[in-house]
Amino acid sequence: MVAMAALPGPVLVVGTGLLGTSMGLALREHGVEVLLRDTSPAAAHLARDMGAGRLAGLAAGEPAPVAHPVLVVVATPPDVVVPTVLAALEEYPAAVVTDVASVKGSVEAAVLAAAGTEGPRYVGSHPMAGREKSGAAAADADLFHGRTWVICTRDDVVRGGVAMVRALATTVGAVPLAMPAEEHDVAVAVVSHLPQIMASLAAARLDAVPGDALSLAGQGLRDTTRIAASDPMLWAKILSANATAVLPHASAVRDQMSELVEALERAARDGVGSEGVMGTFARAIHRGRDGVSRIPGKHGGAARRYAEVTVLVPDKPGQLGRLFGEVGEAGVNIEDFRMEHSAGAKLGVATLSVVPARQVELTEHLENQGWRVMQ
Amino acid sequence: MVAMAALPGPVLVVGTGLLGTSMGLALREHGVEVLLRDTSPAAAHLARDMGAGRLAGLAAGEPAPVAHPVLVVVATPPDVVVPTVLAALEEYPAAVVTDVASVKGSVEAAVLAAAGTEGPRYVGSHPMAGREKSGAAAADADLFHGRTWVICTRDDVVRGGVAMVRALATTVGAVPLAMPAEEHDVAVAVVSHLPQIMASLAAARLDAVPGDALSLAGQGLRDTTRIAASDPMLWAKILSANATAVLPHASAVRDQMSELVEALERAARDGVGSEGVMGTFARAIHRGRDGVSRIPGKHGGAARRYAEVTVLVPDKPGQLGRLFGEVGEAGVNIEDFRMEHSAGAKLGVATLSVVPARQVELTEHLENQGWRVMQ
Repeated sequence: MVAMAALPGPVLVVGTGLLGTSMGLALREHGVEVLLRDTSPAAAHLARDMGAGRLAGLAAGEPAPVAHPVLVVVATPPDVVVPTVLAALEEYPAAVVTDVASVKGSVEAAVLAAAGTEGPRYVGSHPMAGREKSGAAAADADLFHGRTWVICTRDDVVRGGVAMVRALATTVGAVPLAMPAEEHDVAVAVVSHLPQIMASLAAARLDAVPGDALSLAGQGLRDTTRIAASDPMLWAKILSANATAVLPHASAVRDQMSELVEALERAARDGVGSEGVMGTFARAIHRGRDGVSRIPGKHGGAARRYAEVTVLVPDKPGQLGRLFGEVGEAGVNIEDFRMEHSAGAKLGVATLSVVPARQVELTEHLENQGWRVMQ
Repeated sequence: MVAMAALPGPVLVVGTGLLGTSMGLALREHGVEVLLRDTSPAAAHLARDMGAGRLAGLAAGEPAPVAHPVLVVVATPPDVVVPTVLAALEEYPAAVVTDVASVKGSVEAAVLAAAGTEGPRYVGSHPMAGREKSGAAAADADLFHGRTWVICTRDDVVRGGVAMVRALATTVGAVPLAMPAEEHDVAVAVVSHLPQIMASLAAARLDAVPGDALSLAGQGLRDTTRIAASDPMLWAKILSANATAVLPHASAVRDQMSELVEALERAARDGVGSEGVMGTFARAIHRGRDGVSRIPGKHGGAARRYAEVTVLVPDKPGQLGRLFGEVGEAGVNIEDFRMEHSAGAKLGVATLSVVPARQVELTEHLENQGWRVMQ
């Protein structure tokens, strides 16, 4: 079934990697005409073969497209976004042009400085979506489902320009959020770019220890370092592009770490009772606890405390199914879920987050069904 | 049903907080006689009332215990472990004494320096178990199930001393792992103490940003900062006690962060193309990727790559139950599970890790049942 198009076509997607191809697939599902272009003919052909749209006619032997795009989406690597946006503004004088780079201020400034009277047709944007995999082969029509899609509003945008990008976001299932470019960059510096640096620096230390030490690794280490597996080249581009916004946070962390190093030196030399040592450590951990309490809960609502029900799950096929089946029978919605595995044991610890009013009921229900619930 | 005791009793537990009370509950389940003691009578009474054992007879009006303990487990806060261990060695000249503090080298050195000929009856240990909650009220007989329990072996331990602590660990369901104290401290410095510092410093920066910025928070931020919610006072004691082992890692991170700050300054001032900037960022992320790849997989085995099956899950009661029920029908074991929620959308993204050989089969099975699987 092809749903009615919420967005007029055709849409030209430039750059058929993970984001561009996923967007093509999602737009095609909603009946929007999609044209594809990539500097790599192989990447463009793969995207076409996956059903993300038809080729934009620049490769030899491909027919030229019949219609000009109403919207151009630049989904190239971040270091070539600006020239690609400028070329699109020039080539399609009636189109709105957006990009999906993860840093917005520098792109917007460079585009507006060079685009002259064509500038008002550019609207920057950033879908908060991605995967640890990359490339068209990892693309999926559902990639943007339910994700926040930041749209960088400005006063000088042409009439209908912001609405066009908003329609792009909602058509592929994302949730648009208007935010000036500078504000976006300041936000991602602290919610995304600094955490990436911290995860990478913590994980890098694992190279310095014998393998035996890693047998003590628990869920805390796994959680704090998971994103350290990301692509070095992509992140080098992102950190470079957002250097101004990341810098104050990185400097503050370096200063905090210097304080902790001094306190560790004092504790190692003079013993744990030396003046200021405990206070320095406790303050650092305390500030972190205050910070983490500000992260909003799911669905973008205010932070909200869920009650946790922790259940021991035998590590056999079907056990999680049985558990969730019985949670479903109890009619309780699971707000969040965490699974922790134990080294050397055929047993997992599942933590279910539920609204506090249902905690006792769910615990009793599960215990009655024979589950071991930790209280 | 009371199972046969794997450990002779009585066991005296000194310190009836989360760990001590949980241990009492677990030992009682296996028929081991448990005596409880705490400097807070209220804490000791609560542990007794929960069924963790009977009082050791030091509180006024309580009968004295009839038997002397064969094993004393010191489960006090870390800063009073050493005097408590020494007092136990003196009070019970036939007992083996262990402690469960999370830093071992300094405790062992201090105990052996002061205990003289009684020293060989001391065996340090560390169950890798805990919760974000604390106190007897949060105790659970299953707390140690499947967790690694490090036992600090030495040449001078009395005959049967290590075996006694090993029996304690296995009786409560943990997996013993012999490791010298210094090696343990070096290991936890990098797999637990440094990650705590990094999570706390990253989370502390969230205090510096407007609430709007936090609406862009995703799973990466949540994972990297989850443990920042931990207890400041406990962590101040742990970091002080393990300062020598944490110091080189904290110093290395500070130096790395200084390099990144310099590169960020250069990028902010001279542009992304300035010499060395990209290389500095890419190397830092690359080193992290190498490090994280060394974390072993579940069950303590060698790191192993699982295939991921990513499924869109409507946010309604019973949906996870339906999903896991159908995974169970397919007879596929879930090696790991991650649930990601989307701001503003009534939809979650569930990522199931399975052995690669079952990925295609599970994907097809779920799609046939009407699930949207991202590929």
